[in-house]
Amino acid sequence: MVDILHRVGVVAPLDDVYQAVASPEGVAGWWSVDTTGKSEVGGRLAVRFGDDPGFDLEILELDPAGRVRWRVTDGPTEWIGTEIGWRLDRRGEFTIVQFSHEGWREPTELMHQCSTKWATFLLSLKAFVETGHGQPAPDDVQISDGH
Amino acid sequence: MVDILHRVGVVAPLDDVYQAVASPEGVAGWWSVDTTGKSEVGGRLAVRFGDDPGFDLEILELDPAGRVRWRVTDGPTEWIGTEIGWRLDRRGEFTIVQFSHEGWREPTELMHQCSTKWATFLLSLKAFVETGHGQPAPDDVQISDGH
Repeated sequence: MVDILHRVGVVAPLDDVYQAVASPEGVAGWWSVDTTGKSEVGGRLAVRFGDDPGFDLEILELDPAGRVRWRVTDGPTEWIGTEIGWRLDRRGEFTIVQFSHEGWREPTELMHQCSTKWATFLLSLKAFVETGHGQPAPDDVQISDGH
Repeated sequence: MVDILHRVGVVAPLDDVYQAVASPEGVAGWWSVDTTGKSEVGGRLAVRFGDDPGFDLEILELDPAGRVRWRVTDGPTEWIGTEIGWRLDRRGEFTIVQFSHEGWREPTELMHQCSTKWATFLLSLKAFVETGHGQPAPDDVQISDGH
């Protein structure tokens, strides 16, 4: 089992970051503009990328104190069953975001790619909350042949 | 043991990417401008960040076919003894870079931070090789309170 781990600091109140992670409208601001769903535990998020079927996520945890957890229920085979966790904590002027994408069975090339890509989306989240302008797909940062 | 893994694709010949990783002059173009050392197996790279003591790396492998490996011999306690590996492969118009930073004992907050920061330096490497202009320190992307 191998995990993708990241950390960014957002200069904004914790609740602003929480809303950007906890709601489909928020996620649409930094991951993909085509994000729909219902923000409740047991609810689903559908994150789409044009013709790419994208990801279906089940919301496992929604705690405004700063915890969000999703389980991937549909998407690339390697993603299915993995879990994505968000932990938000205040530190000085920052809301610190600790991110994990856990449960990968092997350190495949796709996992390497997704690790780097997640970093770009976390910086997109930071920009979205701080300035109102992220870089969600289809305007996301292209990092390789795998987009 | 937990690893940091990343992948980017650089639109350039493999040897251009190799030189940017294998030589202190190359590393200065995307990681820190203050990088010195000798490009040979058993040689050392010293990567400095202003007043921060930075990192000392021993070069374990230098293979122009596309493999470079370093061992961290001095730096933050958590870094000492970890290994950083580079694997370059051609695919279409891309040189694919698979990166690993292995041997972390715990998934600490610093490791989360370094994972995201490495992604920004890999994108700096991509830009440096493709355009001649990376974002090495002190002009690196600031991601949090930990810089």
